[in-house]
Amino acid sequence: MFFQNVLDQTIKRIKAQTANVLTLVNLSLGGFAIIECIKGNLSLSLLLIFIAALADRFDGMIARKLSIESELGKQLDSMSDIISFGVAPALLIYQGILFEYGAPGSFFTIFFIGCGAFRLARFNITENNGYFTGLPITAAGCLATLSFLGISYLPPQIYMAIMISLSFLMVSPFRIRKV
Amino acid sequence: MFFQNVLDQTIKRIKAQTANVLTLVNLSLGGFAIIECIKGNLSLSLLLIFIAALADRFDGMIARKLSIESELGKQLDSMSDIISFGVAPALLIYQGILFEYGAPGSFFTIFFIGCGAFRLARFNITENNGYFTGLPITAAGCLATLSFLGISYLPPQIYMAIMISLSFLMVSPFRIRKV
Repeated sequence: MFFQNVLDQTIKRIKAQTANVLTLVNLSLGGFAIIECIKGNLSLSLLLIFIAALADRFDGMIARKLSIESELGKQLDSMSDIISFGVAPALLIYQGILFEYGAPGSFFTIFFIGCGAFRLARFNITENNGYFTGLPITAAGCLATLSFLGISYLPPQIYMAIMISLSFLMVSPFRIRKV
Repeated sequence: MFFQNVLDQTIKRIKAQTANVLTLVNLSLGGFAIIECIKGNLSLSLLLIFIAALADRFDGMIARKLSIESELGKQLDSMSDIISFGVAPALLIYQGILFEYGAPGSFFTIFFIGCGAFRLARFNITENNGYFTGLPITAAGCLATLSFLGISYLPPQIYMAIMISLSFLMVSPFRIRKV
């Protein structure tokens, strides 16, 4: 009985670390995306953000499937999210187009990151009720990243509108059902 | 009595927002530091990180003095910290020197951010017992930023050692009394 308990605890601990390791992979991909963005490899940065989104999708799924959702995991997930879907996409759009606009370009970039941080802080203190309040930062970050693909075709001003709209959608009070 | 209550509530709400606004100022300074870092204005980036550290010091002090410490404020503070004292200093050292080392330089940069995120996630789920567990990310970020001043005088390899040491100090289990 004692050994069974020890074994169960050990397996549970390994399982718990699986989800957290995947969260740290997501964070590292976000960090890597930021560095590639600095180096001017914007297409690689875009790819890394999308792979981070996949990792983010899986860590939550694994945590739920294995019933190992932890408070530490939730907090770590938010830290990863602000890096991979807040800072990284904002810098991608900044480096891709917004830098041309000087101070307003910087403002929209920082505003996106700030709204993302507020969205995550609010999410962390609310109970899970089956709904998201405001657009999740993962979705906003992915949409911003996706919009980067149209940079040669769309008028540049539209990127300010995209960033400000996504920022407001993140902090707005509307609710959408979780899928 | 009713109006007194309404007035008290309103004043309390304004007071609560004071600390949160200062936290958002801290976050914005961090975001601004990252953008200046990308643009190659490393000295300005350094200055912005130090001003963010001052704002970070004040928001906590104000929250405690006015007895308006909130769970949202704590979460928002952590989000600001990962940006201003995790991402910004790591990118400053990367742009200043570590980029010369290619992949290992990127690794140490991301490792610093990852350890900072883990430190903050752990901090958020622990009760305040008057002690910090591991080096706070604010201190680690400021020390990394401070080390940037020696970039012309110190051997470049030392910056890898500084980054890895600060990273491990953040996640290590030693305890220091809060001041």
